[in-house]
Amino acid sequence: MSGRKRIAFAMAESVRARMYPPARVAEFAEVADVAGFLHEFRSDAARDVLADVEVLVTGWGAPEIDADALQAAPKLAAILHSAGSVKPYLTEDVLARGIRVSSAAAANAIPVAEYTVAMIVLAGKAVLPIAARYRELQDDVQPDADFPDMGNFRKRVGIVGASTIGRRVIELLRSYSFEVVAYDPFLSVTDAAALGVTPLELDELLATSDVVSVHAPSLPETDNMIDARRIALLRDGATLINTARGEIIDQDALTARVVDGELYAVLDVTVPEVLPPGHPLYTSDRVLLTPHIAGSLGTELGRLAASVLEELRRLTTGRPLAHELAPERYAITA
Amino acid sequence: MSGRKRIAFAMAESVRARMYPPARVAEFAEVADVAGFLHEFRSDAARDVLADVEVLVTGWGAPEIDADALQAAPKLAAILHSAGSVKPYLTEDVLARGIRVSSAAAANAIPVAEYTVAMIVLAGKAVLPIAARYRELQDDVQPDADFPDMGNFRKRVGIVGASTIGRRVIELLRSYSFEVVAYDPFLSVTDAAALGVTPLELDELLATSDVVSVHAPSLPETDNMIDARRIALLRDGATLINTARGEIIDQDALTARVVDGELYAVLDVTVPEVLPPGHPLYTSDRVLLTPHIAGSLGTELGRLAASVLEELRRLTTGRPLAHELAPERYAITA
Repeated sequence: MSGRKRIAFAMAESVRARMYPPARVAEFAEVADVAGFLHEFRSDAARDVLADVEVLVTGWGAPEIDADALQAAPKLAAILHSAGSVKPYLTEDVLARGIRVSSAAAANAIPVAEYTVAMIVLAGKAVLPIAARYRELQDDVQPDADFPDMGNFRKRVGIVGASTIGRRVIELLRSYSFEVVAYDPFLSVTDAAALGVTPLELDELLATSDVVSVHAPSLPETDNMIDARRIALLRDGATLINTARGEIIDQDALTARVVDGELYAVLDVTVPEVLPPGHPLYTSDRVLLTPHIAGSLGTELGRLAASVLEELRRLTTGRPLAHELAPERYAITA
Repeated sequence: MSGRKRIAFAMAESVRARMYPPARVAEFAEVADVAGFLHEFRSDAARDVLADVEVLVTGWGAPEIDADALQAAPKLAAILHSAGSVKPYLTEDVLARGIRVSSAAAANAIPVAEYTVAMIVLAGKAVLPIAARYRELQDDVQPDADFPDMGNFRKRVGIVGASTIGRRVIELLRSYSFEVVAYDPFLSVTDAAALGVTPLELDELLATSDVVSVHAPSLPETDNMIDARRIALLRDGATLINTARGEIIDQDALTARVVDGELYAVLDVTVPEVLPPGHPLYTSDRVLLTPHIAGSLGTELGRLAASVLEELRRLTTGRPLAHELAPERYAITA
């Protein structure tokens, strides 16, 4: 299916404007015919574009590619998604028709992994609690006295979920002196050895890690995976980092242990996504709470667009896609 | 000079207790004869130890190895320093007598570089200002709207000083998507190419970098190197990171631009080392102020001790030292 393609962009207009500004679209126009920019698939104008389109470049807020949309796009042969999770935007009909699907999950994993590694380093050095104490005292503080176990030498870091993001975190951590352990039901012993991590059961990982970072996929099976019993397993003084999805963790159980001074937390996701005013996680100085910013934002959108453009170039020159979603991985992919 | 050696430890007793606990000393005793633990070189007891010692393991708070101490230690052939800057603890007489000097500067550089890279990532994502806003509003925040240039894709990071620490920062940054530029008067074009950085004059580096991190050595020549004129060159919205030494920067000029909302700063060192109560750097939400914690602390002291032990093993087995201070580098070494 190589050769010059007819492509269209389909995503929320606000996303399109930030991710595919005119200069970027011009790069796509060098290797493909750009037929249009869609944010719905129902209007006659959209149907006209779909009738001839061979490749859809999708992104956040794209309309769902369901049976109806597929019917309107008889020539559609590939979907190149400009973000991580592609499943919210398509039905299994897409794979059933043999349409190739590629996502920018690898590119989108990068900023999340970078954020995570920074937070692991900060947690090991107790940077934020020490900074808060220094700011409060405005006098000499003795970090060694208050945090005798601080430091990032030979600490154990537990990675929950050897997903695209989890694996990228593990890769970045190779330059550090951590002992990295990982839990993933689909991680084989061979895989773990190749990654340089020790595979552990989830309970043991939680009970023995100094820092735990959650990178499990967003699936019904991972809801409440780290429940109240498992939150109780975490060591006093441990830090829990969650950049994945709030639902994976029993947030009330975590909040209670944080408020009791037993745990630290770095939370980029919560339930609900914006916590209600007055929630104790807003004000605890043992928590760094960020409003879902670990993923691609700002200049990082350019990395997603660059990844999709490279995928399009591979497609039009007949090379294998670098990030194609294998149908057999569909069930365990977010 | 290989073979089993007679060694002594010389440093502040509080440092010795944390860095060389009995289990660690036992490892040294496997490869050398441990003659004693000194914190001064004047008493008769200390003189007795010095009379036979061949290797001194020094650390923070060690007594100075001056002409008098040297005279008391006729067999002294090597000094293995358990920290970065060795110069405060010896005089040029040491080198003149041909005593070999090795430091744990490379091991000590690691935590500083780790702290720095974490702070560069946080700066690029505007993590702390966004977290502060989220905490204050306790409502939905729109990071893209307030920080449209946020993100760690293709930002420029300026490294001031390709020192041991600066080079380690540059190495760690290879796993990221930054454009790294560096200023160092002793950095050759060949060196820069090998490091993968673009060498720039200091003024241009300051004027064009999104994040600037200072790793210049602590020398009289670097006092006020980033003076008020150079602070004025920094771009609005840029972040200045200093883990090196407060004296390198015009702190008042920096403070003024931070308070005016033009710059961000991450300061692990200040002048004086503990700022006076009420100093505006304590309370600005554009500053992360930490009390000199980037270097080795807590578990990281174990890395320094391990580095010295490995150096001792090299010495006793006749292998080249890994971190020997070359006499011709003495003048530009901290």
